[in-house]
Amino acid sequence: MQISPLLESLMEALRCLPGVGPKSAQRMAFHLLQRNRQGGIKLAHDLHEAMINIGHCKECRTFTEQETCTICANTRRQSSKQLCVVETPADIVAIEQTGQYSGRYFVLLGHLSPLDGIGPSDIGLDLLKKKLSSESISEVILATNPTVEGDATANYIAQMCAEFNVTATRIAHGVPVGGELEMVDGTTLSHSFVGRQKIEL
Amino acid sequence: MQISPLLESLMEALRCLPGVGPKSAQRMAFHLLQRNRQGGIKLAHDLHEAMINIGHCKECRTFTEQETCTICANTRRQSSKQLCVVETPADIVAIEQTGQYSGRYFVLLGHLSPLDGIGPSDIGLDLLKKKLSSESISEVILATNPTVEGDATANYIAQMCAEFNVTATRIAHGVPVGGELEMVDGTTLSHSFVGRQKIEL
Repeated sequence: MQISPLLESLMEALRCLPGVGPKSAQRMAFHLLQRNRQGGIKLAHDLHEAMINIGHCKECRTFTEQETCTICANTRRQSSKQLCVVETPADIVAIEQTGQYSGRYFVLLGHLSPLDGIGPSDIGLDLLKKKLSSESISEVILATNPTVEGDATANYIAQMCAEFNVTATRIAHGVPVGGELEMVDGTTLSHSFVGRQKIEL
Repeated sequence: MQISPLLESLMEALRCLPGVGPKSAQRMAFHLLQRNRQGGIKLAHDLHEAMINIGHCKECRTFTEQETCTICANTRRQSSKQLCVVETPADIVAIEQTGQYSGRYFVLLGHLSPLDGIGPSDIGLDLLKKKLSSESISEVILATNPTVEGDATANYIAQMCAEFNVTATRIAHGVPVGGELEMVDGTTLSHSFVGRQKIEL
């Protein structure tokens, strides 16, 4: 059934969004047409601008439409000499929301995965190496995901840091705050035992 | 925290979609930037085209970029002399998917709601009246939603049909097929008793 070719192609195009199936796409298309055409036009404009203009920061590889992102360009951030390595730009947003960290970032845009043919240069480790050799960095905080690939990537980078005499640290893995011990999976629980810390009184 | 103004405004714009909050908007924006820029550009284009060009069919008021929608323009549909009245264009899609109906539609784009100042002319009943008087329609099937407003709207249109000696029918309300009687709410169950039909052997 074809009511309108434009409408059909809009519904089809909306399915490129993650988590949007045929029913949601239909609901979104009708919602915008019926109730919010201005919002739809603004979304089309912003989407086009973002897709065309957003590239990668030449320092940290996160998404930005400038040459250097606002975090890398911040002199206060530069002076902290800490570098946090994350897998995706979304991780930066999550860490920034904690307000705990005031150093710079480095985004891998993936993780090492030899089986998929993803080697060190594919995740920007040549650029990271250059940073380690040329800049004065005191600590590299490895905040890759706690998965097999994320751990392997963290180990690889830690070895690279050792070559340049830079301290490499890994974020703690353990029982989530507010969680119940009973509900935590075994692997996480054993991580939390291995990573136990002395209580300083 | 501002990583990139373009990215921020994209995330904000994505929230005009129904069911999309801050977290989903962020996920969508990063997904498109990281994995599917072509899809994003196509979505922006289709969205803009749809928002600008899609208007209403002059016959049935559904969404279409032409003057008359494909259903109204179909001569086989015109010959059936049935007219199904629905509240929204999405209802047409649902009914078309059943494959049970081969007549034309009339879309109210809402329902009567005097408290909100929505009267007969706001839901196109003047146009429907003109259709009833000028065209040969044998039956008007009232498929408005089974809500208080939907029922009131159906009754109002049924009275209008009576003026023109056109049969008005209401779609059946009752226990959904495949459902369990035990789980059905009382109102639906009493509707299913009132609307009981003789078993023809």
